[in-house]
Amino acid sequence: MDALKNKILTEGKAIGTEIVKVDGFLNHQIDVKFLEEIGAEFGKRFAGTEVDKILTVEASGIAIACAAAPNFNYAPVVFAKKAAPSTMNEGFYEAEAKSFTKGTVSKLKVAEKFINEGEKILILDDFLASGEASVALAQIVEMAGAEVAGVGAVIEKGFQGGSDRLRDMGYRVESLAVIEKIDDGVITFQ
Amino acid sequence: MDALKNKILTEGKAIGTEIVKVDGFLNHQIDVKFLEEIGAEFGKRFAGTEVDKILTVEASGIAIACAAAPNFNYAPVVFAKKAAPSTMNEGFYEAEAKSFTKGTVSKLKVAEKFINEGEKILILDDFLASGEASVALAQIVEMAGAEVAGVGAVIEKGFQGGSDRLRDMGYRVESLAVIEKIDDGVITFQ
Repeated sequence: MDALKNKILTEGKAIGTEIVKVDGFLNHQIDVKFLEEIGAEFGKRFAGTEVDKILTVEASGIAIACAAAPNFNYAPVVFAKKAAPSTMNEGFYEAEAKSFTKGTVSKLKVAEKFINEGEKILILDDFLASGEASVALAQIVEMAGAEVAGVGAVIEKGFQGGSDRLRDMGYRVESLAVIEKIDDGVITFQ
Repeated sequence: MDALKNKILTEGKAIGTEIVKVDGFLNHQIDVKFLEEIGAEFGKRFAGTEVDKILTVEASGIAIACAAAPNFNYAPVVFAKKAAPSTMNEGFYEAEAKSFTKGTVSKLKVAEKFINEGEKILILDDFLASGEASVALAQIVEMAGAEVAGVGAVIEKGFQGGSDRLRDMGYRVESLAVIEKIDDGVITFQ
């Protein structure tokens, strides 16, 4: 998606060899108009794919999943929580994911009632790096007896192996911008 | 907002005397189509109010702020973070807020560069209870030398004092549904 690559180059910031910071439009400040384009692009990429629900993880996945929903016939969005609020008093599925940028391990939680057997679940997130979050979400989908309809990421760091890992597990992966290399502040796309 | 009150009554769940659970459409599973109506309602309530940015707090405020943005000329959405990722390496404003449902104290953080002096900032969130989160966001707005254009909540628990607290501070508050009382599973609106 060229508009996205341009936006990453003009508004994003590469740090070291592993981090690209897009807090100006994607995960701290959000450009909602641009997110509508991102949502439409996911709609195109997964056109013809049956999607009953969109699953993401708090916090930065939420805006992306909500922007995509209108393009999937307003499929309900479910976001996995990293901490269980006191109101989450029913059964939930849980899977572990390491956070690349925070250096922590989160136990992602989704209430059982929101993923049902046989449903086709599209997993969306802002970043795909080593694939930790997406793999955990896919595990939750499988635990529920539902099916992963696909995995979509806005930005993939291709050199961190996540998409290979997910494809090896049999999932279709669509990333809107794949970064091949980050080198001393310079971003190279695939 | 009658559609919202109906949705709370039919899909929400009252617990004890203080909690209303709306995880089926607002803060775990999200009904994006309905959120568009909520966004439009905020647009009506704050019609004629100058809004440069919309400020909310992760996680459940994000979908609401993004749904409101198209009704405010696509004002950028900024969401306060509860934990600083390793990529948040520049200056940020910080204010404390207690979480009613989680029993924890969060230090809400917003990068300085995303709130500028003189900007009119609309604060939006899913719940307004004791006002902890909104007051913290308002403090951040004031720290930046910006101005609170108003405070909007989808659901206000009127008996917990948050809106009085905010109005006493001089802010305009608009809640789309005000709950007067929760009594043994029965919700009464104002």
